[in-house]
Amino acid sequence: MSLKRKIINDPVYGFITISDDLIFDIVAHPYYQRLRRIHQMALAYLVYPGAVHTRLHHSLGAYHLMCLAVTELRNKGTVISVEEEVAVKAGILLHDVGHGPFSHALENKFLSGVHHETLSLQIMQVMNEDLGGQLDLAIEIFTDKYPRKFLHQLISGQLDVDRMDYLTRDSFFTGVSEGVIGYDRILKMLVVHEDELMVEEKGIYSIEKFLVARRQMYWQVYLHKTVMSAEVMLGNILKRVRELSANGIEALKTGGATDFFLYNFDGKMNRETLNQFCQLDDIDFSFAIKRWSHHPDFVLSELCKRLLNRQLLKIKLQAEPFEAAEVQEKLADAAKQLGVDESIASYFVFTGTANNTMYQSQDERINILFKDGTVKDIAAIDNSLIHQTISAPIKKFYICSL
Amino acid sequence: MSLKRKIINDPVYGFITISDDLIFDIVAHPYYQRLRRIHQMALAYLVYPGAVHTRLHHSLGAYHLMCLAVTELRNKGTVISVEEEVAVKAGILLHDVGHGPFSHALENKFLSGVHHETLSLQIMQVMNEDLGGQLDLAIEIFTDKYPRKFLHQLISGQLDVDRMDYLTRDSFFTGVSEGVIGYDRILKMLVVHEDELMVEEKGIYSIEKFLVARRQMYWQVYLHKTVMSAEVMLGNILKRVRELSANGIEALKTGGATDFFLYNFDGKMNRETLNQFCQLDDIDFSFAIKRWSHHPDFVLSELCKRLLNRQLLKIKLQAEPFEAAEVQEKLADAAKQLGVDESIASYFVFTGTANNTMYQSQDERINILFKDGTVKDIAAIDNSLIHQTISAPIKKFYICSL
Amino acid sequence: MSLKRKIINDPVYGFITISDDLIFDIVAHPYYQRLRRIHQMALAYLVYPGAVHTRLHHSLGAYHLMCLAVTELRNKGTVISVEEEVAVKAGILLHDVGHGPFSHALENKFLSGVHHETLSLQIMQVMNEDLGGQLDLAIEIFTDKYPRKFLHQLISGQLDVDRMDYLTRDSFFTGVSEGVIGYDRILKMLVVHEDELMVEEKGIYSIEKFLVARRQMYWQVYLHKTVMSAEVMLGNILKRVRELSANGIEALKTGGATDFFLYNFDGKMNRETLNQFCQLDDIDFSFAIKRWSHHPDFVLSELCKRLLNRQLLKIKLQAEPFEAAEVQEKLADAAKQLGVDESIASYFVFTGTANNTMYQSQDERINILFKDGTVKDIAAIDNSLIHQTISAPIKKFYICSL
Amino acid sequence: MSLKRKIINDPVYGFITISDDLIFDIVAHPYYQRLRRIHQMALAYLVYPGAVHTRLHHSLGAYHLMCLAVTELRNKGTVISVEEEVAVKAGILLHDVGHGPFSHALENKFLSGVHHETLSLQIMQVMNEDLGGQLDLAIEIFTDKYPRKFLHQLISGQLDVDRMDYLTRDSFFTGVSEGVIGYDRILKMLVVHEDELMVEEKGIYSIEKFLVARRQMYWQVYLHKTVMSAEVMLGNILKRVRELSANGIEALKTGGATDFFLYNFDGKMNRETLNQFCQLDDIDFSFAIKRWSHHPDFVLSELCKRLLNRQLLKIKLQAEPFEAAEVQEKLADAAKQLGVDESIASYFVFTGTANNTMYQSQDERINILFKDGTVKDIAAIDNSLIHQTISAPIKKFYICSL
Repeated sequence: MSLKRKIINDPVYGFITISDDLIFDIVAHPYYQRLRRIHQMALAYLVYPGAVHTRLHHSLGAYHLMCLAVTELRNKGTVISVEEEVAVKAGILLHDVGHGPFSHALENKFLSGVHHETLSLQIMQVMNEDLGGQLDLAIEIFTDKYPRKFLHQLISGQLDVDRMDYLTRDSFFTGVSEGVIGYDRILKMLVVHEDELMVEEKGIYSIEKFLVARRQMYWQVYLHKTVMSAEVMLGNILKRVRELSANGIEALKTGGATDFFLYNFDGKMNRETLNQFCQLDDIDFSFAIKRWSHHPDFVLSELCKRLLNRQLLKIKLQAEPFEAAEVQEKLADAAKQLGVDESIASYFVFTGTANNTMYQSQDERINILFKDGTVKDIAAIDNSLIHQTISAPIKKFYICSL
Repeated sequence: MSLKRKIINDPVYGFITISDDLIFDIVAHPYYQRLRRIHQMALAYLVYPGAVHTRLHHSLGAYHLMCLAVTELRNKGTVISVEEEVAVKAGILLHDVGHGPFSHALENKFLSGVHHETLSLQIMQVMNEDLGGQLDLAIEIFTDKYPRKFLHQLISGQLDVDRMDYLTRDSFFTGVSEGVIGYDRILKMLVVHEDELMVEEKGIYSIEKFLVARRQMYWQVYLHKTVMSAEVMLGNILKRVRELSANGIEALKTGGATDFFLYNFDGKMNRETLNQFCQLDDIDFSFAIKRWSHHPDFVLSELCKRLLNRQLLKIKLQAEPFEAAEVQEKLADAAKQLGVDESIASYFVFTGTANNTMYQSQDERINILFKDGTVKDIAAIDNSLIHQTISAPIKKFYICSL
Repeated sequence: MSLKRKIINDPVYGFITISDDLIFDIVAHPYYQRLRRIHQMALAYLVYPGAVHTRLHHSLGAYHLMCLAVTELRNKGTVISVEEEVAVKAGILLHDVGHGPFSHALENKFLSGVHHETLSLQIMQVMNEDLGGQLDLAIEIFTDKYPRKFLHQLISGQLDVDRMDYLTRDSFFTGVSEGVIGYDRILKMLVVHEDELMVEEKGIYSIEKFLVARRQMYWQVYLHKTVMSAEVMLGNILKRVRELSANGIEALKTGGATDFFLYNFDGKMNRETLNQFCQLDDIDFSFAIKRWSHHPDFVLSELCKRLLNRQLLKIKLQAEPFEAAEVQEKLADAAKQLGVDESIASYFVFTGTANNTMYQSQDERINILFKDGTVKDIAAIDNSLIHQTISAPIKKFYICSL
Repeated sequence: MSLKRKIINDPVYGFITISDDLIFDIVAHPYYQRLRRIHQMALAYLVYPGAVHTRLHHSLGAYHLMCLAVTELRNKGTVISVEEEVAVKAGILLHDVGHGPFSHALENKFLSGVHHETLSLQIMQVMNEDLGGQLDLAIEIFTDKYPRKFLHQLISGQLDVDRMDYLTRDSFFTGVSEGVIGYDRILKMLVVHEDELMVEEKGIYSIEKFLVARRQMYWQVYLHKTVMSAEVMLGNILKRVRELSANGIEALKTGGATDFFLYNFDGKMNRETLNQFCQLDDIDFSFAIKRWSHHPDFVLSELCKRLLNRQLLKIKLQAEPFEAAEVQEKLADAAKQLGVDESIASYFVFTGTANNTMYQSQDERINILFKDGTVKDIAAIDNSLIHQTISAPIKKFYICSL
């Protein structure tokens, strides 16, 4: 038993217990502590004031669910060694360590082409050096090179504890009860069959509920139109900064780690730039927005002011593309109202698309293990809700305007 | 009826409804929106990862409880005009608008001698000009000049909705269930007698529970020793910045509104400095800490690094003052460990006191209205828990060290 | 304002308030109090030990939701007079007053051909006499003769407060979180359009959740196979009593109101038999089962003993009818095991069907009111989950055996 | 691992798991199943409509907490053998098996002088024979003859899981949030020191909360004046039946197991009478009350009718005994109103006392284990709430009347 033992209060699960030295050291590491300064849900707090929880809190929660999952599976007779247990817990703790400022909202925009999972892996490798190779097995599982697939599937799969925690936690902090998934029952229904993660037959309805709750969270929260408006405004701010930086960066610099990535980064990640990345968090970017709200460029300062003061662009969603005439009319209105050219107004009036794919059975399947030993994808089961509307990718068109 | 109607999801109360134009305009005001960027519980999230909720969320919650209180009192026959209703709701929404960065943790340190309630009032007065005098009655009630005392008592008194919300909300987000107060039952027990706020006889046990829960929150959360350690470290950072600024401020400046208040403020609040104050929030100060963690001064950078990475000073609490010898020994240890003089080490090893006064009947009383019309202070009632230990001020001594 | 005011603690909603004299008198009436002695969920407590809540508790809960619904609709501008308000509340309080012992589990078996809603109406009429005609309007609404349809729809319709309460309450007491419907959000989404009850456009996902939760409750709770086993055993007990009574009733009589309805009732309800009916509750029938467990008839005593001691028949469900051979085999086994003829064994081995129809748009529709004033059935909306699997009637075959 | 594995939904704790054959057999035993038919809180449902939960549900809940406690203690290094684990779980499951109809409300009245714990032990002994001696160790622990005291203390002591469950559960089902104790934190604070159960130093505030919550439950629920009225009415019914039975029992008999204990029991428990006792439950007594409501004796039928229809006697509580004159006046009023002699009226107008002793340190102490290894009673700790009002026995006088 470890001499270090820590109990953390969590409003979602009650208590989270840490009783292993390696887990303790990971949590204490500055790279992990940095996740305290990254919001889990980017700008969603502009609609759901409670949604200010952090990536650190989410990954601790996912770690807790992993502890429960390991206990449940062992109770059902699946052998999991202590080494595997610690490794899979370390893996889930670090799965999001590569997230940057405002996570998904700026992903692929701030560091174009670098996915957060790639960065998570690179950071894990650096931490592994600090920790004398103790993360070897965790990295093997994280990268799905370990032969016992279910351990990877618990970290990243259709029913991983990552999703279970973020749906549960995001639902909790937003107050959107439609997103409650019943993680405790799902965990009790998990089973390992030939080293693959499956669900017991009697868990079918729980899985249905999970998938429906996820659909609800997408439409009510993650793709909430006002949240989308804020996030595209954030994207436009970044775009404008990039454009302005062509003419000199002095008036744009704010003194933080953002400066490097906005004006000097060549897209190559190495040990040094990775360290720079680990200095970055929501604070730097939020501070920059506050500064830029006083910048002489009208587009930049106006977008920043509006975002800060929650004077968001209006947004409309529909199933079909918007007519060019409607867009043009709104653009002309905005140009007139702001007293600017239409090219400037186009930072405030524009169209785009949003989509959500909930369950694609070509990707990865949720396997149901029947009492007689047969295995079926849930989408292939009679009376299932899953193989129908719920799994169809949905695309919506939006228009933003003043 | 207002044309503007807004429903806000709140994980604590479910839904908060805004249906009045003035309330809508207050919430939309940039000075109010700024409260999104101030943590309700300063640095407590270093111990309770869920405690990242904001002053905006708290004041919306207090507003919600005020709505319930008004409805309950009217149901019991207390006449409250629509003007009074809107005014008391506006008052509670704005009661905390004067909080600065890290609220209580930096209060009296950052702007020495300026209490947040004074600032709240000054900001309300400025907003009142913007709103064409619509806040006149709210200000009258807030400053306790309105003859119907109970309206002020609902905003600020032993049983105000401010306390009810922050205890409920802080308990919710920390996950410390000991702090749950049963706000709904307390609200049902409130009654107005001769324009004073009182509690019905059968509400005595609910009040007991409220006061005990508050005691629990003080010792488990607000005065949690690790939270205290973080907050005194923050205080020392500020102290060191002030000392260093005597020798020039260039290396200290970070570009935000903190610069003005740290290096140029003469202590006088006027319309202009108030506007500067309303640009300030946790972001600026957090950003400054990140910057200062690279400052050449050892004390400053070390304190900032430790706070950022949650490498907090050890802290010990006891009922008696610490022996000089013990302090000296720890100081010598720290000087040795850090390779610095004891004068420098004294930023890392020091003593202080913490105290909590829960219920002081000389200050303000919780009056119980009996069925026969008599009124008694709860502390004077038989078998009450209140007049004893619970009300005694408690003082504890602490020592911080490496 | 009424002088009588009562606050009732409810674990589901917190507090239920009664502040009207007529409502107070209805609740105090012995016919209403009798609902304390009828389980809301019949024998479901044999699977879900918490499911021991009563019809009285459910109807109080539905009354509470009605109070909320009236407030919400008024806030949206729908005029509801005080008379209509009290009538619709009285109507919902009494909607289940005609339930007999073990409600649905014995309905159509104990009093064959008499539906509980018919009895509710007859009992309301008797109470109306006691109450000097104060229930006239409530009865008009209950029987859907009042021109403002939405009042009836709130009592009995696709989105009535009856369903909202029983799904919420049954989910709460069973602990099956999959059944949580989010009643508070649904209530906020209700709207009246041309005196019909509808749902606002943005409430679509809440309705989806409601219908999915209902589907989950059917399969996990109401049609849980073990609950079904207990209920068909109860049916067989009744059937056996009826058969035995042909040969004399002395040994069957237990002294309660069951005696009259089992052996002397001619199927005609009049004032006197209605009064007899109002003496009946779960206590009488439960007591009879305890007595019959000592009856000399093997079938009767064995079924009663097994039900009392929760030694339930095994049950299997499938999509197709069971093969005659399988039934015959189990029957032969049972006959052998019990040492009885197959005709006797057939009380322990038998087949049947269960079905669930969740949402039939031919019956009654859930209308969505769009912002532009158009009205559409939810089943006709793009991307809706509703028009598919969820609405298909499902029939399952079961076999019970030893 | 057992082949039998059962998961039970519990609204309070989520899921209760049974995975041991002996536990499974105990739960399936008719003597245990009988606890389904005994209300946990006797007649409290007349005030709190949700309080209809059963002794079976409570004992399953206490069993669940025992599972958690064993896991926690083992995690802290206390060795508990599998035999001890199963025994202590069996012991807690059966601790209440000796409760009779309406448990505490009729205890010492129905079977005078026989305490339910004595009966629990006798029934455990009978079941032990059925189970081939598998309960030997459970009985040893239950009777505190096993040397490792903490196992007994977990079943019966100041901080046993019995209390933790009933406070939690009763609070849950009544909806009285003041009674929530935070069982999960208390369990995490338990520790075994020299085979005695203690609480860690940092658990002091949790214990305070536990004791305060208990005090709240006593005054708001267990000794709620309306509940007391119903329970003394029940006592008077029993008293009247006893008096009437002196003149013949035919008109009183109802056919159930109550007949034996009311009219033929000589106070001696043997194997046969114990079996009779195990036929008894709330159903028999409730049925008898329904029958007696038609009995020709005015006192008996009137009391029964009033109890059935919730037309309870008025009750008043005060700190001093009632004046003889007041009692006499009410008695005369009642005699007049009912048209009976004062001797008859005295079944409806009478006085008595109620009391509550919360924490008596002479009885049994809650020991706090400090980090330095010292042990102190919580009542002896500085600033503790416990040694004061909270521990004083309180006695109140009541008067019942029409």
